[in-house]
Amino acid sequence: MTISLYTASIPVFTQMLNSVSAILNKAAAHAAEKNIEPNALLQARLFPDMFPLIRQVQIAADFARGVSARLAGVEVPKFDDNEQTFEELQTLISKTLAFIESFTAAQIDGQEAREIITRPGTPKEKKFNGQAYLLSYGIPQFFFHVTCTYAILRHNGVELGKRDYMGVY
Amino acid sequence: MTISLYTASIPVFTQMLNSVSAILNKAAAHAAEKNIEPNALLQARLFPDMFPLIRQVQIAADFARGVSARLAGVEVPKFDDNEQTFEELQTLISKTLAFIESFTAAQIDGQEAREIITRPGTPKEKKFNGQAYLLSYGIPQFFFHVTCTYAILRHNGVELGKRDYMGVY
Repeated sequence: MTISLYTASIPVFTQMLNSVSAILNKAAAHAAEKNIEPNALLQARLFPDMFPLIRQVQIAADFARGVSARLAGVEVPKFDDNEQTFEELQTLISKTLAFIESFTAAQIDGQEAREIITRPGTPKEKKFNGQAYLLSYGIPQFFFHVTCTYAILRHNGVELGKRDYMGVY
Repeated sequence: MTISLYTASIPVFTQMLNSVSAILNKAAAHAAEKNIEPNALLQARLFPDMFPLIRQVQIAADFARGVSARLAGVEVPKFDDNEQTFEELQTLISKTLAFIESFTAAQIDGQEAREIITRPGTPKEKKFNGQAYLLSYGIPQFFFHVTCTYAILRHNGVELGKRDYMGVY
């Protein structure tokens, strides 16, 4: 018995995107309750040259879509990344979930050896097979931005716990 | 072709623990260069009820050891978690790497269906099979603490970039 590439990707992204959605709902409720301008959270950063909350969510969603699409060998969908509110971030997550959940296991399983090239044609071009692309690149990148989303909100006083981060598993 | 349980666990932990080691070396060098008391970083938190840097590193290492051991069905080694300096954290990471790299693929592969119970005998007891334990629990937990380590240091002005987080892949 071994793990299928689908199992190691889509359900992991789904679990964590649902947790990001729930975390953002708690953040929006916190802002409303405490009379906090939503942008104080949405534009919050852990350091001036780090990305703000909105961008962290956009990048997490982008990795979920991009990694799934590249594993399946389909075109990576273009998203505008122009969200400005908690509500728009929820729509982004819903659309991202709908996209990644549209893949069948058959589309992703068996793609472990597929050649995937990131930043093609640039000095940072890097070739992976599907398995290495997911495990050594996609998963670490995705979790980075999910955790930063949580960390920015915790740092700004939103009452969240590890349970919120972990989601339903 | 499918992913082996070993491939989805040990090399992932190894990549990221090596990156944590390099990040901590940069943090220690930054403290020395700027005349910063090392504890200002080691005890830094993103919020008062979050864990400080030292504890984040200890927990990341603990998940790497615990998840690997449970997948292989061997006893989880007890560590004292009494580190107080950057040097001691490096020793902790070295010992953790030595422990997880001692597993052969044969010890972990094929354990996808092994029953793993977290917090046995408590109200939070949860049963997993090996595959779900790794993908829906171990990996998210591990990356949380690795990313928090990075985020605490970035928040405190240590010059790090995503490349440092990603490590060698």
